[in-house]
Amino acid sequence: MSSLATLLARIGPADGAAMAAARQRQDRLTKPPGSLGVLEQLSVRLAGLAGACPPPLPDPVAVAVFAADHGVHAQHVTPWPQQVTAQMVANMRAGGAVVNAFARQVGAAVRTVDIGVAADLPGGPDLIDAKIRPGTADLTGQPAMTRTEAEAALSAGAEVARTLVDDGYRLLVTGDMGIANTTASAALISVFTGVDAAEVTGRGTGVDDATLRHKIEVVRRGLARHHPDPDDPIGVLAAVGGLEHAGLAGYLLGAAAARVPVVLDGVIAGAAALAATVLAPHVADCLIAGHRSAEPGHGVALRALGLRPLVELDLRLGEGTGALLAVPLVQAAARTLREVATFDSADVSERQP
Amino acid sequence: MSSLATLLARIGPADGAAMAAARQRQDRLTKPPGSLGVLEQLSVRLAGLAGACPPPLPDPVAVAVFAADHGVHAQHVTPWPQQVTAQMVANMRAGGAVVNAFARQVGAAVRTVDIGVAADLPGGPDLIDAKIRPGTADLTGQPAMTRTEAEAALSAGAEVARTLVDDGYRLLVTGDMGIANTTASAALISVFTGVDAAEVTGRGTGVDDATLRHKIEVVRRGLARHHPDPDDPIGVLAAVGGLEHAGLAGYLLGAAAARVPVVLDGVIAGAAALAATVLAPHVADCLIAGHRSAEPGHGVALRALGLRPLVELDLRLGEGTGALLAVPLVQAAARTLREVATFDSADVSERQP
Repeated sequence: MSSLATLLARIGPADGAAMAAARQRQDRLTKPPGSLGVLEQLSVRLAGLAGACPPPLPDPVAVAVFAADHGVHAQHVTPWPQQVTAQMVANMRAGGAVVNAFARQVGAAVRTVDIGVAADLPGGPDLIDAKIRPGTADLTGQPAMTRTEAEAALSAGAEVARTLVDDGYRLLVTGDMGIANTTASAALISVFTGVDAAEVTGRGTGVDDATLRHKIEVVRRGLARHHPDPDDPIGVLAAVGGLEHAGLAGYLLGAAAARVPVVLDGVIAGAAALAATVLAPHVADCLIAGHRSAEPGHGVALRALGLRPLVELDLRLGEGTGALLAVPLVQAAARTLREVATFDSADVSERQP
Repeated sequence: MSSLATLLARIGPADGAAMAAARQRQDRLTKPPGSLGVLEQLSVRLAGLAGACPPPLPDPVAVAVFAADHGVHAQHVTPWPQQVTAQMVANMRAGGAVVNAFARQVGAAVRTVDIGVAADLPGGPDLIDAKIRPGTADLTGQPAMTRTEAEAALSAGAEVARTLVDDGYRLLVTGDMGIANTTASAALISVFTGVDAAEVTGRGTGVDDATLRHKIEVVRRGLARHHPDPDDPIGVLAAVGGLEHAGLAGYLLGAAAARVPVVLDGVIAGAAALAATVLAPHVADCLIAGHRSAEPGHGVALRALGLRPLVELDLRLGEGTGALLAVPLVQAAARTLREVATFDSADVSERQP
């Protein structure tokens, strides 16, 4: 069996008994039943993933920022120069990006992963060097990468998750950095959901109307050239994906195999999650939608994944920023089952029938 | 001048220069302009309130839980026995309520305030004894409290805020506990917004259809008896409010006078905020809507206040729980202005014109 097949074989369903116990416990806590809304359902999922009620507190936390460049940048889909990818990786390593500020807020470690930046980055213990190739090819002219490269990126992403879990992290967060990566995300989401390019392609970092129309055409051309088969997610990633999409898909598989929850960031993570759930449907049990970004494809992806976002604040930055904001909400959900008294233990009267 | 008039005179507008500086700085941070959505606007408000850019980190945090009972409980508006108010205060003091679990999550101190519980509570350093009277009168038969009592509750709430600020807290959170308090909240919101009782009265802790219809009738009867004048907020609070509403309104005034931001919890805080902003319109500058609860009157109140909630997870518990979940988001907003590098400082290229 290949290493990927071994990984997929380890991904199983949530524990139904632990989920039932969590539901029962929520109804005995000193609060009106159901009054914690979405967080009650989330606490049940955390119990199911852990196979225990109460589940462990999902802590400590790490965000892995998968950075890569995109050949489709040559098609002028964004006003930002390609070298911003490498510059922002340097900014993150220096602690100056928004992802660093938000990670400090929620007590998360930041790991930058060079999965395919089109520049030689200075090495160091703060950078995970997993470069598959220096950026993808232009998906409008050829496959973004080879199938072998897509598989290598998947394996590298899974290895990042495995290493973080081995290092003791119990809640993983997705991050991404890559100029032009919303174009590849739109292509992936269109393939996996069957929704037209015009409805899943957005303004990314904030392009104008003319660039948006052009970006939609670029996505259409890529899809028309490759006709990717949604039942072959590795083929889809190779044809129109980014190296960070493949890496993130592997990261989700690795987390699911370790039964560790993952908080998804925005549209890039959403596209990667669609690929991962085709490869292993039970991956869905470990996925938490951190937020919904302003990018229209993200909402489409979340609906297809059946996930309700925890935070909706019109963010469209990426890096893992939206997902990090959701971390305290996820931990709060676990705390309800772990820390809140029951009617019996606190001697609080219940409502009259 | 009365102490209330002195307090109101201290509440001024936000600092326009600091807000302009914050807007400019947001556009120089290493991210696409506008990409932090609602959090950028929030960071600007924090700068305006502090009169400084960057604003200080709003930390440490305290939640004050104003607890009181309601005479309208006699009208069978809820299936929960009245003694649950006192029992839940005991649960909170023992650390077993959801508010305690969420406060631990976000590093907030919990202060319980007896502003009008219909029971003698054991004293202790963890309880602020500000009892005005042991519960309100039944608003369907008489004013809930006297005007003098409403003013005393306002002053007591302002004193709680002042004490917390003197103790070093730099972000205040509203909390509440009081069986039947969504009934009084609906009455207050109907008066201050002019929206019909049927549209602002909700299921509270989860009443059935028959009780909801009855609850709407009870609110109507209270309003018909007193005809409260929305331009006289103290009179409105006295006629149909709760002691925790009056206390919370004073708490907001006290925070605004100290220029410390306050995160509002749900429908009880929303009703109190409507009263406070009639007393002093600039109070609005220090208010942050922590979340939107499932209670319909809360959405009506937030629209009237012009506030967009940070968290929307169908919570309907109260206690301060929804507001506490928003605390990390508020702090993250301040961190962007304080910690994120600029294009110049990080040597990151900007987008091409």
